[in-house]
This record gives sequence, structure tokens and C-alpha cells, in this order.
Amino acid sequence: MHWLTQPCPIPDAALYQAAQQRQAQLTKPTGALGELETVVMRLAALQRRELPTLNAVHISVFAADHGVADEAVSAFPQAVTTQMVANFLHGGAAINVLAQALGATLEVIDVGVKTALTHPALISQRAGDGTANSALHPAMSHAQLHLALQAGADAANRAHTQQADLFIGGEMGIANTTAATALYCALLDLVPLEVTGAGTGLDRAGILHKVTVVQRILNLHRAAHHDPLESLRCMGGFEIAALTGAYLRAAQLGIPVLVDGFISTAAALLAARIQPSMHPWLFLSHTSAEPGHAFAIDALQLRPLLDLGMRLGEGSGAAVAVPLLRMACALHAGMATFAEAAVAGKL
Amino acid sequence: MHWLTQPCPIPDAALYQAAQQRQAQLTKPTGALGELETVVMRLAALQRRELPTLNAVHISVFAADHGVADEAVSAFPQAVTTQMVANFLHGGAAINVLAQALGATLEVIDVGVKTALTHPALISQRAGDGTANSALHPAMSHAQLHLALQAGADAANRAHTQQADLFIGGEMGIANTTAATALYCALLDLVPLEVTGAGTGLDRAGILHKVTVVQRILNLHRAAHHDPLESLRCMGGFEIAALTGAYLRAAQLGIPVLVDGFISTAAALLAARIQPSMHPWLFLSHTSAEPGHAFAIDALQLRPLLDLGMRLGEGSGAAVAVPLLRMACALHAGMATFAEAAVAGKL
Repeated sequence: MHWLTQPCPIPDAALYQAAQQRQAQLTKPTGALGELETVVMRLAALQRRELPTLNAVHISVFAADHGVADEAVSAFPQAVTTQMVANFLHGGAAINVLAQALGATLEVIDVGVKTALTHPALISQRAGDGTANSALHPAMSHAQLHLALQAGADAANRAHTQQADLFIGGEMGIANTTAATALYCALLDLVPLEVTGAGTGLDRAGILHKVTVVQRILNLHRAAHHDPLESLRCMGGFEIAALTGAYLRAAQLGIPVLVDGFISTAAALLAARIQPSMHPWLFLSHTSAEPGHAFAIDALQLRPLLDLGMRLGEGSGAAVAVPLLRMACALHAGMATFAEAAVAGKL
Repeated sequence: MHWLTQPCPIPDAALYQAAQQRQAQLTKPTGALGELETVVMRLAALQRRELPTLNAVHISVFAADHGVADEAVSAFPQAVTTQMVANFLHGGAAINVLAQALGATLEVIDVGVKTALTHPALISQRAGDGTANSALHPAMSHAQLHLALQAGADAANRAHTQQADLFIGGEMGIANTTAATALYCALLDLVPLEVTGAGTGLDRAGILHKVTVVQRILNLHRAAHHDPLESLRCMGGFEIAALTGAYLRAAQLGIPVLVDGFISTAAALLAARIQPSMHPWLFLSHTSAEPGHAFAIDALQLRPLLDLGMRLGEGSGAAVAVPLLRMACALHAGMATFAEAAVAGKL
């Protein structure tokens, strides 16, 4: 696992500045495209291109099961994790529709669902038959953590081989908002009541029960709280570990990362704690309907592009934001300058 | 102008409900796609189709000059209105790049710029050489108001002939945030200090001067304040009148309207006041960086899709939101149901 500590490339300040200067010359008031200006300047610095592009988008969806589902923390039965993997493989899920609309590459990786599937398109890198119940035990062993991190890094390596301009990670795992909520609390010093939400659709009583389960997880693994890898091992999930490895490796390989929602942002927090030089490679796609998401957004000091009340996972929120990034690139490359168009500047 | 009072079709409640039922059967927790679910249900009801589509997007950009530019209320010289019309015609503006990216039809209508241009692609329906200075006179005569409203209706008629699935209006007119600010104050009973913003880029002193100009406009035309057409005539602009006519006519013809930003929302408010049955046809694309925009959003009781700090006009904010609507339609049509995918439902 020596790659975990490898630093990420530093964004090119000269190309950032050149993009900023170009934006100031385009036929619009400076700043009038808002966040679309910011993202294209960041992309220019990351991709080291005067005119960044996002033609090749790589989406890796990691699926795994969670022992903590035994604590009745989800509105859906655990079998849905495997059933949804089958749905991904047959093209029926939201992320399939979005990937097709974007012309993106989509791959599905089983990093440890409870009931394994066989399918020619499924990438199988199983760290186990689901994690252990983190309210009673560490969720995974050191060896399992490494397998799951490596599965993520392998996905980023494939994205790099395919010359991807952007990496999106998605996840599927019944009960994984419980794991992510515990990670938010451990990493950001929060109490479960302020972070815990409905996940896939708990009612008020269900949320209050989930709060007590998250508190038990936090109490049991108190020694791990401020160590990102140990928190991930004790309280996380295989798919969260895979996302963490994927984000980190993508950044090391020079591929910008577009983070999805509540679960994915836990992985982004972990990756940035493990290797702070990966932080500039992160873009946040949207604010999740899961109320605790705001704490991680604040901690990362990044502004999400969308706030549509989405809470699906699978990478769906990130996919929905891709056209905004593409239009930012198109505007940057395609608009005339004041000089070219003979338009007068500011008085 | 008898068309002004024609009511708009009522959205089909049965198709709304059918779309809602379909959303509940798709392989995701109900509501997990957030606003993307809401917009597709609304589109189904408006387009009277089980599976709404937004393939054909029609964008009409209306340009006109404002006599009130004489009061030094803009950061850019008045000549920029005509120069930007030339830029639209040569394909160099933001809206050109966005229309191309969307495969949308884009047309440019001169409804009264100060210095007229000749170009084969320019639609010329000039109501005058710019409006009169509304701080001293009514901005336009009754005849001019009717010409400008009709120019907008004609654009909607063309969109209808071309079987457009969505109408977007854009505008260009130096000093038109001043006109729109006065309209916001008159229609929503607000004081200029709480609505007036930087427009294309005024400094603090410029904004405070603009506040005094807006107050003079409001004082001079106090009798018009609660009459939408008379407010539009006395304080508005030809392009705002054209947008008002276009939105109203599009709704009458059964074409959903995606509203752009601060200026366009003044026209949406006017259209909904003139003919309340057009309100269900409105979608708000984004929250403008112009701070007063929030008042009109509240008044219309609609949730904008984006909040990217944009403040460009031209229809650019609406264009940027189109992929979100298209993805909402694609998800609705393309996702598998729980039954089709053999995925278990909620516990």
C-alpha cells in the first residue's frame, strides 16, 4: 500500500492565471458566469491545458454490504444491495441512464456484497461477504481494508489508462449512510443527533434508532476517531474504502474527481486527511438531502454545484452535474473576446 | 392585442399523477431524485405526455436600448447593446456557445436598439430607437408597448410552428437592470435599496446612485404601480415587454417556459399578473447573483434549479439548466421499475 502516501501533482498556478485572464477578456462582465468561471480556471490548472475538456468521463460504482444492517438502520432490506448490482449490470438504474446520456464509461465493482453475483461485465474484487457489524466489532480487518482501498486504486488506474478527463465514484450498500454518519462524527467531532438523517427513507422513529446505533459505533471505536484509516477500518464499508482509494489514486494520476453525495463525501474527507495534497483535485457536485452533508461540505471548504434535494447515491448527483462542467469548458473555449467582437469594455 | 387576455391550457392532473406513480415504481427510494422528480411530473402534465421530452429547445434573445442609460446607471456604455447584438449574430456570445452545445434553435430579435444593424439573420421588429428615459417620461407609448409585446408573441408563435418542447427568452439591453428593479419595486411593493444590485458591475457608489434613479422612476410613475401593463409601459423596456408577450403566448400555445435571471423574471412576474393561468407554465432556471432576484422568486413560489452566482442574461442561465431537465426526462423514461428489475421495495 505504498501508493497511499504518494503526493498528488500541484495545480499549475500559471495556467490558472491564464484562464482567469481569458475569462476577463470574454464578452461578458467579469464574473458574470459565476461558478462556471471558477471551475474552468481550476480545471485548466489541474489538466494543465489552456482549454480544459471533459469529453472522457469515467464512472466506477462500488457495491458492498454492511454488517450493521443487522441493527435495522435502513428502510430497505439488505438483499437490495445485490439486486441493485444486478440492476446496474442490466442497465436499469439511474446511473446507467445518466452515464448513457453523458457518453460516460460506467463500470460496476463488487467489493463485497453479501450474496455474490456472476456477470461478464461485473468486476469482482471482493474484500469479504459484507463487513462485520461495526456496532459490535471493527467493520473490517487490516487485510480487508487494504483489498478495498486497492480495488478503488485499480479503478482509478483503469480510468487513467483510458485517458479519462474526470473521475466519478458511485456507491451502493444498504446501511451505508449509517457507516458514513459514524465517519462524519468521528472525523469532524460531531454528535450523531446533528448528522443522522433518513437515508433511503426512515421515519422519525427510525432516525432516532439510527442515532443510538451510530452512538454505539462511535463509543466502541473511540480510539480510532482521529485516525482516518483506522476510522475507515472500524466504522466504514468496503465501498467507502474503495472510493477513498479511487479518489486518492485519481488525484495522484492527475485526474480531477467529481464527488457525489453524502457517502462519497465521507470518502473525500478520508482521502484528503490521508493525503492533503489531493484536496485541490476535488469538485463537489451537489448538496445531498441528507442534512449532515453540510458539515462535510464546510470542512472541505468547497462549493457544490447543485442543490436539487437528491439523495440516491450511485454517483447520480455527480453525473447530473457533468453538463455544467462541460458547458463551463465550452464557454471558455468558444466565446469571443471583447477585442475579437469589437465590443466596448467597462466604463 | 386580444390574445393578451386568452387563458392558458390547464396542466393535465391525471398525467401528473401517472408520472408521480411511475416515479414511485422506479428503482430508487421515492423522492431520491429530488427536484428532478418534480420537474418531470410537471412536464408530463404540461406536455400531456407520459414520457415528456425536451429535444427541441427554442431560444429567442430580445435586444433593446434604454433611455434611462442617460442617468449613468450602468457600468458599460450604451453602445454595447448593439455591439452585443452583432456578437450574437457572429456566434461569439455565451448564449451562442450554449445554444450550440444544446442543439437549440437560437434567434435574435431587435425590438429597439439605439443604433440599428442590418444582418440577414437578425429579426427586426423595432418599437423605437430605444425607450425614453423613464426617470423623466413614460418609457414608451401605448403603441410601442403593443409592438414590443407582439414581437414577443411572434417569437412564441415561431417556436410553436417549429414544435418546440421548451421556450427560453433572453435579453440584452444596457441599463435594463434599472428598469427591472423599478418593476420589482412597483409590482412587489419593495423599496429600491433592498432590490438594487450591481448589474453588470457597478461599485458601491454606483449602486447608491442607481437607487436614487430607481426611486425617481417610481415616484414619477406612482399611478402605474399595481397595473402590470401600465408599469411595463412607464418603467420597462422593449425587450422586457417582448419577453412578457413571449412567455404569455408560449404558455397559451402549450409550450413550457424556462425563465432566465433577474430581468427575465420581471417579465415572468408581469406575464403571471396579466394572465394568472400562465403561472403553471413557468420553470425558474437559476437564482441570479443580483440580490433582488430572491423577492421575485418568493413571489412566484417556484424553486430555481441552479444557484451558480450567474448574472449575465442573454438566456444563459436558462440554457445552462436545460441538461438538468433533459436528464430528468431521460431518468423518467429509461429507469427500470422495481418489478422489472426484481428489486425489493421498502420494508
